Amino acid sequence: MLPQTEAGAALSALLRPRSVAVIGASEDSSRIGGRPIAAMLERGFSGPILPVNPNRATVQGLPAFASVRDLPETPEAAIIAVPPKAAEAALQDLAERGTKAAILFTAGFAETGASGADAQERLLRIARQHGMRLLGPNSLGLLNTANGFYGTFTSSLERGYPIPGPIGIASQSGAYGMHLFSMARDMGMGLSCSVTTGNEADVTVGDIVAWMAQDPGTEVIAAYSEGIRDANRFLAALDLARRNRKPVVMMKVGRSELGRAAAQSHTASLAGDDAVTDAVLAEFGVVRARTTEELLDIARLATRKIYPAGNTLGVLTVSGGAGVLISDAADAAGLPMPPMPEAAQAALHRDLPFCAPQNPVDCTAQVLNDLSLVGRFGEALLGEGGYRSALLFFTHAGGAPSITPRLREQLRALRARYPDRLMVLSVLADPPQIRQFEEDGFAVFADPSRAVAAIHAMGRFGDAFAAASPEPAPSLPALEWPKSTPSEAEAKRLLGQAGIAAAPEQACATAEQAVAAARALGFPVVMKILSPDILHKSEIGGVLLNLGDETAVREGFALLMQRAATAAPQARLEGALVAKQLSGGVECILGMHRDPVFGPVAVFGLGGIFVEVLRDVALRRCPFNEAEAEAMIRSIRGAPLLLGARGRPPADIRALARMLSRLSVLAHQAGPRLSAIDLNPVFAMPEGEGAFAADAVIEIAENRS
Amino acid sequence: MLPQTEAGAALSALLRPRSVAVIGASEDSSRIGGRPIAAMLERGFSGPILPVNPNRATVQGLPAFASVRDLPETPEAAIIAVPPKAAEAALQDLAERGTKAAILFTAGFAETGASGADAQERLLRIARQHGMRLLGPNSLGLLNTANGFYGTFTSSLERGYPIPGPIGIASQSGAYGMHLFSMARDMGMGLSCSVTTGNEADVTVGDIVAWMAQDPGTEVIAAYSEGIRDANRFLAALDLARRNRKPVVMMKVGRSELGRAAAQSHTASLAGDDAVTDAVLAEFGVVRARTTEELLDIARLATRKIYPAGNTLGVLTVSGGAGVLISDAADAAGLPMPPMPEAAQAALHRDLPFCAPQNPVDCTAQVLNDLSLVGRFGEALLGEGGYRSALLFFTHAGGAPSITPRLREQLRALRARYPDRLMVLSVLADPPQIRQFEEDGFAVFADPSRAVAAIHAMGRFGDAFAAASPEPAPSLPALEWPKSTPSEAEAKRLLGQAGIAAAPEQACATAEQAVAAARALGFPVVMKILSPDILHKSEIGGVLLNLGDETAVREGFALLMQRAATAAPQARLEGALVAKQLSGGVECILGMHRDPVFGPVAVFGLGGIFVEVLRDVALRRCPFNEAEAEAMIRSIRGAPLLLGARGRPPADIRALARMLSRLSVLAHQAGPRLSAIDLNPVFAMPEGEGAFAADAVIEIAENRS
Repeated sequence: MLPQTEAGAALSALLRPRSVAVIGASEDSSRIGGRPIAAMLERGFSGPILPVNPNRATVQGLPAFASVRDLPETPEAAIIAVPPKAAEAALQDLAERGTKAAILFTAGFAETGASGADAQERLLRIARQHGMRLLGPNSLGLLNTANGFYGTFTSSLERGYPIPGPIGIASQSGAYGMHLFSMARDMGMGLSCSVTTGNEADVTVGDIVAWMAQDPGTEVIAAYSEGIRDANRFLAALDLARRNRKPVVMMKVGRSELGRAAAQSHTASLAGDDAVTDAVLAEFGVVRARTTEELLDIARLATRKIYPAGNTLGVLTVSGGAGVLISDAADAAGLPMPPMPEAAQAALHRDLPFCAPQNPVDCTAQVLNDLSLVGRFGEALLGEGGYRSALLFFTHAGGAPSITPRLREQLRALRARYPDRLMVLSVLADPPQIRQFEEDGFAVFADPSRAVAAIHAMGRFGDAFAAASPEPAPSLPALEWPKSTPSEAEAKRLLGQAGIAAAPEQACATAEQAVAAARALGFPVVMKILSPDILHKSEIGGVLLNLGDETAVREGFALLMQRAATAAPQARLEGALVAKQLSGGVECILGMHRDPVFGPVAVFGLGGIFVEVLRDVALRRCPFNEAEAEAMIRSIRGAPLLLGARGRPPADIRALARMLSRLSVLAHQAGPRLSAIDLNPVFAMPEGEGAFAADAVIEIAENRS
Repeated sequence: MLPQTEAGAALSALLRPRSVAVIGASEDSSRIGGRPIAAMLERGFSGPILPVNPNRATVQGLPAFASVRDLPETPEAAIIAVPPKAAEAALQDLAERGTKAAILFTAGFAETGASGADAQERLLRIARQHGMRLLGPNSLGLLNTANGFYGTFTSSLERGYPIPGPIGIASQSGAYGMHLFSMARDMGMGLSCSVTTGNEADVTVGDIVAWMAQDPGTEVIAAYSEGIRDANRFLAALDLARRNRKPVVMMKVGRSELGRAAAQSHTASLAGDDAVTDAVLAEFGVVRARTTEELLDIARLATRKIYPAGNTLGVLTVSGGAGVLISDAADAAGLPMPPMPEAAQAALHRDLPFCAPQNPVDCTAQVLNDLSLVGRFGEALLGEGGYRSALLFFTHAGGAPSITPRLREQLRALRARYPDRLMVLSVLADPPQIRQFEEDGFAVFADPSRAVAAIHAMGRFGDAFAAASPEPAPSLPALEWPKSTPSEAEAKRLLGQAGIAAAPEQACATAEQAVAAARALGFPVVMKILSPDILHKSEIGGVLLNLGDETAVREGFALLMQRAATAAPQARLEGALVAKQLSGGVECILGMHRDPVFGPVAVFGLGGIFVEVLRDVALRRCPFNEAEAEAMIRSIRGAPLLLGARGRPPADIRALARMLSRLSVLAHQAGPRLSAIDLNPVFAMPEGEGAFAADAVIEIAENRS
């Protein structure tokens, strides 16, 4: 048994109660207050069921009670299936009696507008006062196969119950959560529990994930959400799951503009920036699924509990075409398929002259005439090839009664010899034959492309479980942040204190100072308006590039002062900033902003079209160390430009990574008054020559304390 | 009945023979020579089956014959299941008797090396001499449900026969073709025929597609290939299918480097450039599937025969979450989901206050209490929304016995009112209920993401069927191509005759001529070595940019001559080319090369990192008109740079398109001696100011006639 946190123990009253009252209990098993009772009776809920109904002496054969106060014992949990006003009253009564958890099916709360939100707030107050946990309101409920607790009114149960098993489903959405549940059941997947959190007045998807991370009956967590309500609890839950080696596969919809618009019209959840969600889930080793089937495929394969870090794929196939298809899928997923060792290839060629033994290892349909070749080739793949995962493609032949028994024999021997490898079969067979293969220790997929995606996910879990916690980024001396957005020079001075270097520059109040500065810095120089009130200087012609001599600097100074006076007559004008014009570097953009869900997030990209046209950026939650910063830098599509493409010298990536990591630490330490930092451009000079910000904007939120 | 071509009629003897001999007939129904007979007996093949076996009087209850010569009648087709030598002899005998088609199961021919290839060549000669068609050798055969012809030994039939229906499968690969067939059968899809072409000595996948394009029993064609053996026949087949409004969905594996390597080790097929394949399939309206399931999903939906040109998607959902998920999938596919008209939204809001009526139209689980809302909302979606396709998401509720009958009633009324719309249900239900929905005129998908991909494909078919044949590009005057690769100046002169403009320039033999030319053209100028023997000038420092005055030109000329003499002392040196230095334009790359499968192919991309780092290019088979060229130009990811991103003026895309189209016509007219043209860079000047090649290389294959 894994250690239970206090919060987890309190949630157990909700997820696995010892007794349950049903407020609004109905004799009719097709009604909202009747379905849970019927289901629990059919599935043998382990504790007493206490129907509350003022108009009946019995409900579905059970003695019924007129009110919560009339209950002969205090139920550990209650299901509330009455209209809003009555629900609130019942909740009050239950809380006073000491019921520890309530599931509110009742709709008509925050999802309907301001007065509903007020009513929801009252429910939460009642629960908090009495230390009670609340699921919903507006929830389709939950089910737990371990004790037959069916606190749900989903019509899905009309078509059957799930078999017990290790997969837990946590979904904010009721309808979609039950869609997931229903598909999983129809695919014969074993479930521990399935929970839909509805309006999340109290219990969130994050809370459920945390509970499942500690539940000994749950080994794999499948989650769904449209928006994260409490990022800290959510991330703590993901961290707990990772530490307990429980893979989390998650669907977070709203990837596209269109999808986010749909999400906003549908729910009050804050959808947030999808790219940030992507980065955060990756950080915690959560695999993000794009489709329902992909999510279920990954959850199903994960129940094998083989998570190969440093995953590689070896393929054995009776069809060359399938081998090519699988290679394409592995390439698209980023799952390596290194070739077999030369000696092993030569040996296989000797055994079967027309095989293609490289990887995919195409043993041709010939093996169907001599099934011992499956053992011989499989042994070569796993032993000599040493692949962490194997995909064995036998298509319909694997399901042919004339072949299956002898094939099983070969495969079982392989399975026994290599118990630590992930082994997946792609066969087409009748369900009983598929179950046999599964009992033999193989996951079975009809479509090999889906198998590849799921195998790749197992490796990602393995990498996440194997990774040591990253070295924390060293903290920086606390900076004195100004009360309001500072000038460029002041911004650079502040960043300089944190070790973020700008191009050498001088603030100059007069033209003669500017000339002297340019002479000292060396020509050519850049000159910019210096004013705390003018943030976007280039828009008013406030930046002059490539000033090559003293005359140009002198005339440029006058021109800048004139442009500033014309465009922003009210601005405080402090003169001009004269900086050395950098050349020979790669232009980058470094920045940070506050994500409304996850807080400060750092951004890295290449300058110009890469960010503006191609949106080729890497994001990461702050803070992070230099190694993580370097991984971000290397992850963008345009990274070859920094690594020496097109005959350039490689850029000083270490200096860039140091700058990015420091920026992330600054952002983390600064607190919410720091809205954004924008270093654009930063020149990444050739290796060993550093990286310098040529412009810096720090935005301070003036109304925050 | 569609018109039959002559070639099609000949193939009918192969695909739907009136009688069949089986050479190497076996009593054992699990052996290669026994399976086809057992299957045909079980499925009631419409004609006589004539077993040939020298050792038996009867085979599987049928009278057997000792040899082909002993057959009492000439079979229209024959199945050959004997070793290579015997196969050749039997083929000769059959050909002499006048048998019109043979299926060769026998392996050991071209797939095994040179001597096998010779033997295969002999088979082909025999067939050609007698006007016989040949499937294989090394083929798993074919089946036709229309007349119960099972000329295949696949073990897949042990698990059942397909139901007859409108989908034809044409696959080069035997094992993978039968994988497709088996999955289709397991999914309950109706098939007309399923053919695997094996070594393709004679009959290719293209031939089968052409036959199916004319077969009245086949309405949808699913094809698979690793490489195209005869591009002309293949493209003619695709064209015929499109003209007959038969959608073709195709899988062509080897998308990735890894996949192409696997394909090369597996098959003798020429995999070709995958990006060219993509472009060619798109040109013919073929939808390329990435996975087996996607291919079958598309084929299945296509049997509804609703192909909405200008496709749009309207979504009705009981789950907001599913609505978001579907929006994401539609966005990723490029399937538009425009919003509902404002008035319709307002009306739906009046009917159901908490609905989200924009599109997706989220009618909430409330409709399950009042199913008449399905009709009301569906009517709004199809009538007022006017979407060409509708996806209706009812998940498990659609399959709940308490809901299904009333839901069906509402949906049938909708179906009847809008017979021309593509309507897809996403429900989870038991197979009999799914069949009912399908009989009502709905395609049913469990996973809504898969539904979206298939719906999008129907629109692409519709667009292809609706498109008028493109206006042919006007031909250009025939050029006098030189005998060998010409100099840059000569290349530009040739291209200039075809209306492809270069930057104004002059060939100069001396430094003084260069100075005079620069003065005439206007400074700054570009100067390059002029020599027919130096193709890649920039690699030896043979290009000088930005020469601003006479001194720079004079010194530059000397420098170029010296560099040429050092780097290529044997080269014929004709002086230097002086050209006006263009500025203010967008750098592009235009070119053509010969694809080994599909012939001359034009390429367009933006200069620099776009092509070299991001591989952001558009390809198209030559020739094509200006409108098609413009579509290519607009299709690249970096296109915003040409359309005025980052404050640039929009580029002269029409001039660029004219140049690209002319290049394609030139390439088409030139014949195989023209290996490649490379215009890099081409400057696309601001709108109205034209496009000019600043460099031009024409490569001539000297050894071709």
